[in-house]
Amino acid sequence: MAMMILAEEIGPMTLCPIGEIHTPYARREDIPRQGRLSPELCEIEVYPKYAYALKDIEQCTHLFVIFWLHLADRDRLTATPPLDGKEHGVFATRSPNRPNPLALDAVELLEVTENRLTVRGMDALDGSILLDIKPYSAGIDSFPQARIAWQKDGEA
Amino acid sequence: MAMMILAEEIGPMTLCPIGEIHTPYARREDIPRQGRLSPELCEIEVYPKYAYALKDIEQCTHLFVIFWLHLADRDRLTATPPLDGKEHGVFATRSPNRPNPLALDAVELLEVTENRLTVRGMDALDGSILLDIKPYSAGIDSFPQARIAWQKDGEA
Repeated sequence: MAMMILAEEIGPMTLCPIGEIHTPYARREDIPRQGRLSPELCEIEVYPKYAYALKDIEQCTHLFVIFWLHLADRDRLTATPPLDGKEHGVFATRSPNRPNPLALDAVELLEVTENRLTVRGMDALDGSILLDIKPYSAGIDSFPQARIAWQKDGEA
Repeated sequence: MAMMILAEEIGPMTLCPIGEIHTPYARREDIPRQGRLSPELCEIEVYPKYAYALKDIEQCTHLFVIFWLHLADRDRLTATPPLDGKEHGVFATRSPNRPNPLALDAVELLEVTENRLTVRGMDALDGSILLDIKPYSAGIDSFPQARIAWQKDGEA
């Protein structure tokens, strides 16, 4: 029999900063429309307290990076992506405005020096708070056939 | 000049439950090693308050689902994946034990009925708290060439 987990029983879901992301993007308008399409290198700094959790990360060619969208409007339920110009639900877009402002970037890992990772493909504001890093596994994470009907060019 | 964002200035990063995930996995030992390799269907229930944020989601073939790993040990910095048997940093594994217990599943979207999504490819415990849904975009999220040196079969 399924044992339901109730949100009330879990208590507050509070995140801790585990590092900072250094990028060339000081203002929102500096951020490329898709980080993946930009050649810029960014640096992920993991706080020393968590550095040991990076053990063997240099064995990964690509990573998922989750960070906090501190400027997000958490009350917005729809967004209008620039290329499309039509309103969609925020869960059908990658808009930073969403109930839980978690950003997800799939990036290429280029270099690891102690607690600092050099990556390509981020679209974070400089100084963004790092929340999690996960190895990207082609076997479970790559869906080249995925489609979003309302978009034509990979923009979401 | 880069304007640094300090964690202290952002204040508490607290998440809100936006729904629940219904799966056939009542206990941790029921969960398939990789959700993607299982044919089981799971249901994502978005709370009515957030249902409008699903507008147009049926146009997406694949989604990212982020949920809370409420049983995680947040103090663990290393994990020993079963297939590998060696210790790696948690940021180089998909272990549920990590400083911020955020789970990320890339899933196939099969059906949308009002505020309920039927998906394939989840590895969540039944009743897990839903945090975010994002459209999977092949153009920015698919890296079929990604490799993790210490793993042989897509397990991380």
